[in-house]
Amino acid sequence: MVDRIKAAVLGATGLVGQRFVSLLASHPWFELVALTASSERAGKRYGDTVQWLLETPMPSNVAEITVAATSPDSVEEAEVVFVALPKEAAMEIELELARRGKIVVSNASNYRLEPDIPLLNPEANWNHIGLVEEQRKKRGWRGAILKVPNCSTAVLTLSLKPVLDKFGIRDVHVTTMQAISGAGLRGVPGYVIVDNIVPFIKNEEEKIINESRKILGKLENNTVKPLEVNIYATTTRVPVLDGHLESVHLVLGREPGGPKEVIEAFESWGPRPQELGLPTAPEKPVIVRREPDRPQPRLDRLNGRGMSVTVGRIRLSGRVLQYLVLGHNTIRGAAGTGVLIAELYYKIKINGLI
Amino acid sequence: MVDRIKAAVLGATGLVGQRFVSLLASHPWFELVALTASSERAGKRYGDTVQWLLETPMPSNVAEITVAATSPDSVEEAEVVFVALPKEAAMEIELELARRGKIVVSNASNYRLEPDIPLLNPEANWNHIGLVEEQRKKRGWRGAILKVPNCSTAVLTLSLKPVLDKFGIRDVHVTTMQAISGAGLRGVPGYVIVDNIVPFIKNEEEKIINESRKILGKLENNTVKPLEVNIYATTTRVPVLDGHLESVHLVLGREPGGPKEVIEAFESWGPRPQELGLPTAPEKPVIVRREPDRPQPRLDRLNGRGMSVTVGRIRLSGRVLQYLVLGHNTIRGAAGTGVLIAELYYKIKINGLI
Amino acid sequence: MVDRIKAAVLGATGLVGQRFVSLLASHPWFELVALTASSERAGKRYGDTVQWLLETPMPSNVAEITVAATSPDSVEEAEVVFVALPKEAAMEIELELARRGKIVVSNASNYRLEPDIPLLNPEANWNHIGLVEEQRKKRGWRGAILKVPNCSTAVLTLSLKPVLDKFGIRDVHVTTMQAISGAGLRGVPGYVIVDNIVPFIKNEEEKIINESRKILGKLENNTVKPLEVNIYATTTRVPVLDGHLESVHLVLGREPGGPKEVIEAFESWGPRPQELGLPTAPEKPVIVRREPDRPQPRLDRLNGRGMSVTVGRIRLSGRVLQYLVLGHNTIRGAAGTGVLIAELYYKIKINGLI
Amino acid sequence: MVDRIKAAVLGATGLVGQRFVSLLASHPWFELVALTASSERAGKRYGDTVQWLLETPMPSNVAEITVAATSPDSVEEAEVVFVALPKEAAMEIELELARRGKIVVSNASNYRLEPDIPLLNPEANWNHIGLVEEQRKKRGWRGAILKVPNCSTAVLTLSLKPVLDKFGIRDVHVTTMQAISGAGLRGVPGYVIVDNIVPFIKNEEEKIINESRKILGKLENNTVKPLEVNIYATTTRVPVLDGHLESVHLVLGREPGGPKEVIEAFESWGPRPQELGLPTAPEKPVIVRREPDRPQPRLDRLNGRGMSVTVGRIRLSGRVLQYLVLGHNTIRGAAGTGVLIAELYYKIKINGLI
Repeated sequence: MVDRIKAAVLGATGLVGQRFVSLLASHPWFELVALTASSERAGKRYGDTVQWLLETPMPSNVAEITVAATSPDSVEEAEVVFVALPKEAAMEIELELARRGKIVVSNASNYRLEPDIPLLNPEANWNHIGLVEEQRKKRGWRGAILKVPNCSTAVLTLSLKPVLDKFGIRDVHVTTMQAISGAGLRGVPGYVIVDNIVPFIKNEEEKIINESRKILGKLENNTVKPLEVNIYATTTRVPVLDGHLESVHLVLGREPGGPKEVIEAFESWGPRPQELGLPTAPEKPVIVRREPDRPQPRLDRLNGRGMSVTVGRIRLSGRVLQYLVLGHNTIRGAAGTGVLIAELYYKIKINGLI
Repeated sequence: MVDRIKAAVLGATGLVGQRFVSLLASHPWFELVALTASSERAGKRYGDTVQWLLETPMPSNVAEITVAATSPDSVEEAEVVFVALPKEAAMEIELELARRGKIVVSNASNYRLEPDIPLLNPEANWNHIGLVEEQRKKRGWRGAILKVPNCSTAVLTLSLKPVLDKFGIRDVHVTTMQAISGAGLRGVPGYVIVDNIVPFIKNEEEKIINESRKILGKLENNTVKPLEVNIYATTTRVPVLDGHLESVHLVLGREPGGPKEVIEAFESWGPRPQELGLPTAPEKPVIVRREPDRPQPRLDRLNGRGMSVTVGRIRLSGRVLQYLVLGHNTIRGAAGTGVLIAELYYKIKINGLI
Repeated sequence: MVDRIKAAVLGATGLVGQRFVSLLASHPWFELVALTASSERAGKRYGDTVQWLLETPMPSNVAEITVAATSPDSVEEAEVVFVALPKEAAMEIELELARRGKIVVSNASNYRLEPDIPLLNPEANWNHIGLVEEQRKKRGWRGAILKVPNCSTAVLTLSLKPVLDKFGIRDVHVTTMQAISGAGLRGVPGYVIVDNIVPFIKNEEEKIINESRKILGKLENNTVKPLEVNIYATTTRVPVLDGHLESVHLVLGREPGGPKEVIEAFESWGPRPQELGLPTAPEKPVIVRREPDRPQPRLDRLNGRGMSVTVGRIRLSGRVLQYLVLGHNTIRGAAGTGVLIAELYYKIKINGLI
Repeated sequence: MVDRIKAAVLGATGLVGQRFVSLLASHPWFELVALTASSERAGKRYGDTVQWLLETPMPSNVAEITVAATSPDSVEEAEVVFVALPKEAAMEIELELARRGKIVVSNASNYRLEPDIPLLNPEANWNHIGLVEEQRKKRGWRGAILKVPNCSTAVLTLSLKPVLDKFGIRDVHVTTMQAISGAGLRGVPGYVIVDNIVPFIKNEEEKIINESRKILGKLENNTVKPLEVNIYATTTRVPVLDGHLESVHLVLGREPGGPKEVIEAFESWGPRPQELGLPTAPEKPVIVRREPDRPQPRLDRLNGRGMSVTVGRIRLSGRVLQYLVLGHNTIRGAAGTGVLIAELYYKIKINGLI
């Protein structure tokens, strides 16, 4: 792949935008050609206008990029456009970009439940990318809109998929403990979260319920039939910088032989993105820790360079399975999965499947 | 009650010990006459040897008390002895004190499941204090051992009791987010908990399961028949100073008419300790907050001077009831409930019931 | 004082506004008659629109007050107006209110260095209130503008004043560790401050330097001659909710006999507001702690109901004096000092001095 | 260097021990052959007994090493021994190891001020390693004891050295804001440090004063003449995981032409370890950040892989120079400097200088 695919990031100065930039700065397939932000930042060097807050230094090659104001014209040069805008800002521009033939990989929450728009957590439902054909036919555009799931949902469904395939799932009860970065740079004031927990995140529980059912659903006749499963979710915000931890209680379809069979289901799982050797696909999508006190956000969030989820405290009682799962919310739960989706798209395309 | 009842605290320098001291320093019925600690502190002024860490200043009258080494002799003068020792240190001395005729109100986790020892969360099971008679008969002592429940269990069962009475409960799933103080002053290193969550607390889940069933059980024929209910618990430690938050998912015995009926059950609950006017009983044992983002540990832990639990985010779907409950773990979950138990004992005794 | 003085708070929903409300809700001299906020909150119950974040519950009597949009007309009924607005919003309205005869006690940073406007930290410079006469003459209004100092400055100068009076001060070097609440509710994002320190607060060091020199200056011929002293300040933001801690290094004018003489200077200080018995004046403006590890923000910020500063780690080497001082930034450093200024004004007025 | 030098770590399970292990696991010159800990861990796999808490996963090759009980015999195989023991445990064993001919590179605080024992912050005083000759002559051993400075001192003196060389220094006033890890894994309880600062660290200020004077002193006639300079230090503990931030106020010997000349002094500094190409020497020992709000612990502690210190907020007023300096306390302030010292020793030895 000698010529790299030209890529842009819309909303490149927020926390998810910074993760996109960080992952794309030295990507083997993609080349960053445009970064956009709100108009007051336009014309400035990225390195001067961004408040870089990641734990690793800003890649030196992106510091020099001149930021453009977010608009379809400003990413004309790019073939694939990664969207890290708020929902309201994303709605119109995504449609316009697809009409102009761009591959739009978006972390914004709009359109995630549209029947012809794939909502992709690649290891769990890589084949839903087939909706692109339907989308193009129906909408009459050459481009495509591909959606990244909600952060908690991405982490959760990655752990649910191998269990679902092996044992079936009837009920899902989940309580999340979500990191501050999930709300964006200014979303959670310090005075609200130090020595505290906020047991509410707007619309988050609905997203977990609806998006999980779509992601785990079956693609049949050019549409996704959502998984029939009861999902109950309670979401909270905790004083952790990065890494969503989720306490999961499942009622399975059939009783596993024992916890070892469950561990085996997680560890032996080798889904398609791994088979395809996608650069951002982690070696193991689900890592199982056997210590009694893992996963922990600070210690496990960067497992698999932030793309693996880590499962621990597996407890089985009949058909009731309990565990905790942790994933990096702005990598696995946002930008990293976005990049993985783009990799999947181009790999499939090269193989002539789309 | 002109002459106050002489009281001692065993293990007065730990975090629960400090709460006992704080609550008893100006109690209308009890008078602190002895504070004990490990032998290296013996002979020192309490004010000099304790590392006082509560958010309110140390009561000036207790600073002058000379600390004694923990032993049955050192609390000879007291009639009621509050125990804030670790389990191993508590086992022998509690028996000896009861043999010497003391009323032992203990926060230590030993003996909580002994059939003849009442495990009391007074609003939920005040009548279990009747076990004292059986205990005295069986053990041949004049004193009594009365147990304070585990902190998470105290908070949980206070919210479960009115629901149980009104609708019945089949299943309880609970995920806790527990404060640092629950592990004692040195239990959770700063390096482990800042920007992190530890999803494991040793023996905590077993305590929640077994103690809840006993507390919510029925006293019949001088023994408590545990409640038959499935309880699944996952316990975590979060970077919060005080206040355990619990995400609760219940399957009820019968379907309430609507969320209002559930709120009504919580708010109309006026159990015995409140009727008896016990000084430490909060006006409302369960406070319901209607805002979408409550309860929060920092904002709600001191409700009812730390003795109320606060319930919020009530969601009902058929027979499935979800809510969050928060309580102050070293007040409602430890020292405060200990003092309330002692008040209950003496009130009942005065009324000639024991 | 049978009829209480009618009072209003401008900007009542921010963190300083909440402190004003909290202090005034049951004040013996003042009666809250109006609370204002931005226009989108106008017409709502205060209890419904404010995001109350103080560690104590909202006073029930203020919850029912209907919030007005900030304007001179909306506080017509009040005689004294407490201002908790940002500087830009405060500039015009303060002038207009003074023209309308209101006593304006303002925490906003504008006008603090105006020659005819008193900048008051009452224990340190109560007599500067005499500038009001000059102000009225010069500006031709019946009202008055009285300014609360910058938060760090209020804490610092309260500790400097008794030292200055006794030993003289040549140089002041101060490094501050300032709490999150100092930047207001949304001023410091959680993602920026957890596990971090930000070593910069805009304009803060200039405020400390200039305001301290004015507060510690002499009132002569209707003007304040700033203290001639070298002040070097470095200000930082730390992950603490409330309470500014300051590391102070002084070169004194003369060498004290020993640390005891310094402690004596702090502890024997009994300035005018205390003599006058003002309700909000703490018993001791400066509390000295002798333990090696105090003051600490969480343990000492509420000393003297938040109005005392706490000094510790006093070290003397020749004419070099080092210590740490801590004060509650939104009480002593803002709303509490504002209320104390108003008390001073009315007490002096009753005595016929203004 | 085909055969790597065999190395051991004493006290390998603490936080500094973990950093040593992390740095040595894939070091080009050294090979880990022994890890020791207290006797109850002896015989266990390192991976099983250590509570690994670094932000990066444990190197897989060290997990398999069997931990030995700390004793001179247990590191017989090693040529160089890195010591991460507490002072009391280190005193005897360091002497014995040197007698046995080992090169002892120690982070323990004992012996740091002994005249014949070099206290090395290599960029600042690499030539003090010459004391080894005197040490061997005087003590009659073939080995050597080389000391790592106190963590705050290492960070401070790295920033002082280029300033001293260029402008001279008369007075140093420093206020530190030190990370939790500086006190070891269990040194700072979570309940003490969340939402708080502790303004005292035992013996720390004396260490900063005495060690800085030795490090910055001149080696003459086989002894170090301490720098004559007034140092005033105030040390505090803050809720930050890693990274000591220090507010520095200097009175210089001569007035620089301007801040640019100071920046130039920092940035042009290319001391001996960098010239020698030592593997652990960072490209720039001092990094200057020009943004108004840097350095910040979370964002700058890993600069230069934790071996650079970062300076910011440089302010010059006549001969008074103020700045903030940040360094990683367990890398630059402990294990990293230890490894750098060992590299320096072997490089010098190979060159025939020792």
